[in-house]
Amino acid sequence: MFEIPSFVEILDFIGTFAFAISGIRLASAKSFDWFGAYVVGLATAIGGGTLRDLLLDVTPAWMIDPMYLICTALAMFFVILFRQYLIHLNNTFFIFDSIGLALFTVVGATKSLDLGYSFWVAIIMGSITGAAGGVIRDVFINEIPLIFRKEIYAMACVVGGIVLWLCYIVGFESYISQIACGATVFIVRIIAVKYKITLPILKGEPVDDK
Amino acid sequence: MFEIPSFVEILDFIGTFAFAISGIRLASAKSFDWFGAYVVGLATAIGGGTLRDLLLDVTPAWMIDPMYLICTALAMFFVILFRQYLIHLNNTFFIFDSIGLALFTVVGATKSLDLGYSFWVAIIMGSITGAAGGVIRDVFINEIPLIFRKEIYAMACVVGGIVLWLCYIVGFESYISQIACGATVFIVRIIAVKYKITLPILKGEPVDDK
Amino acid sequence: MFEIPSFVEILDFIGTFAFAISGIRLASAKSFDWFGAYVVGLATAIGGGTLRDLLLDVTPAWMIDPMYLICTALAMFFVILFRQYLIHLNNTFFIFDSIGLALFTVVGATKSLDLGYSFWVAIIMGSITGAAGGVIRDVFINEIPLIFRKEIYAMACVVGGIVLWLCYIVGFESYISQIACGATVFIVRIIAVKYKITLPILKGEPVDDK
Repeated sequence: MFEIPSFVEILDFIGTFAFAISGIRLASAKSFDWFGAYVVGLATAIGGGTLRDLLLDVTPAWMIDPMYLICTALAMFFVILFRQYLIHLNNTFFIFDSIGLALFTVVGATKSLDLGYSFWVAIIMGSITGAAGGVIRDVFINEIPLIFRKEIYAMACVVGGIVLWLCYIVGFESYISQIACGATVFIVRIIAVKYKITLPILKGEPVDDK
Repeated sequence: MFEIPSFVEILDFIGTFAFAISGIRLASAKSFDWFGAYVVGLATAIGGGTLRDLLLDVTPAWMIDPMYLICTALAMFFVILFRQYLIHLNNTFFIFDSIGLALFTVVGATKSLDLGYSFWVAIIMGSITGAAGGVIRDVFINEIPLIFRKEIYAMACVVGGIVLWLCYIVGFESYISQIACGATVFIVRIIAVKYKITLPILKGEPVDDK
Repeated sequence: MFEIPSFVEILDFIGTFAFAISGIRLASAKSFDWFGAYVVGLATAIGGGTLRDLLLDVTPAWMIDPMYLICTALAMFFVILFRQYLIHLNNTFFIFDSIGLALFTVVGATKSLDLGYSFWVAIIMGSITGAAGGVIRDVFINEIPLIFRKEIYAMACVVGGIVLWLCYIVGFESYISQIACGATVFIVRIIAVKYKITLPILKGEPVDDK
């Protein structure tokens, strides 16, 4: 019955766990109850992939494999049990979250290419897979989505998607291209946070009405 | 032309009406115009079923049967005509809303099983059908979704779904299992509100940033 | 390679540009970064059509034709370069936005009819195509959707859809019906804003809890 998980499955689990933790912690900061925190954690973890699969017209992964629900439940217990120590684990979660971002980007982009879509669609689908869960999370906790205002987050997915594209043009093997894509997302994200690199703010004139 | 509605159709109408009333009243408390109130009422009534049908890749029921649009329009007129008496009807609406929650859960879970999905997917789909409309309503009126913070609401759907599962394992007839599921949702909801039973709040440490 | 765009394609471009500008300007008023502003602009421009295509179970147009992404990028550069002059262009943008609203309504309604749906579904799909992008935009910037509280906006789509219906009943040619529909949306929108015609507000009693 039980099979040894592959390397990709382990990365997927780590990413899902980190994304769920991020949703559950933000929900707990808003005094959500256990059910609400679980739903926000789940939406953070699977929301991006679900939106991608709706757009690609395929069945979302979590409707086939219960791993995502179980992983979110584990993240929930983890937060309940260890909440006073979590703040010391921020760096660990940041690394896990970046692993998830990288893997989700690769999975989303590859799935789109396999279905015959163009590369620019694949780049968008990779970014949606990585970043849309966080947008849904922020809508649920009634905040302006974080990725629209600070930090290089979805842009790391876009850069990774472009690297994937370039690798295909050059003619690299599929798995090498995917590793290059994931590594790019991971490194761009880490460097951006470490050196506090952000995108410029779009300064606006006051909009009077509409 | 006109056929006598079945018992399930009557319950469906009552549930849709109650869900629409809930959306329209909350919209009116935020000074929405008539159009906005209608849309929020409609989204509350059909939002859960629509999300479920998008996930299951079938055509949403309201795109085939205009009953849901008409029912929401009737709910709208009802609120406009009787708004000063509505507060005295809160108990009635609460019963109607619970009927809707129960029926929508049964319909959502059964539809998923009929399409060949696992029981845990059916439980989620039942809960989405019953509770996601209220989440969309709260996003539209720019509030943190109520079901994430207080009251047993979606949890009643989850419990009902589990009862449905147990009935299938035991081997009950399909219609008996469905009645047991709906009755469970209804009773759990009523008891939870009457005895003010709530889920524990997830206490959170302040999240410094991400 | 390059084909001369048709009249409808030019209108589609103008509408997409105006919708994207509206999203980007509101995002800039909330200090979004460039990425966030681009995403909000894109969601405003393509959100309605995407929701419609998910409901109709067809592939969203922007996943086939990169025009929408490019047009939003042009809108972005336009706002960055000319932001201090934009306020003087408000009337121009209002006309462009109304053109977009009219065209999107016609496209959405016609697409639904071509897929064999009833006229009342087509009216809703026309309205979703025209107005849902603005709702998504307002959810992203964490405001109550503008179209729920002020101005005749989606109602212009509904009226246009009804005109389309009447034209079909009378037996007009398809293209004449579509022009009549689009012209109606455009004129209703212009008149409503010029004469400050609004829908009545739904006055609400305070809702105590649920």
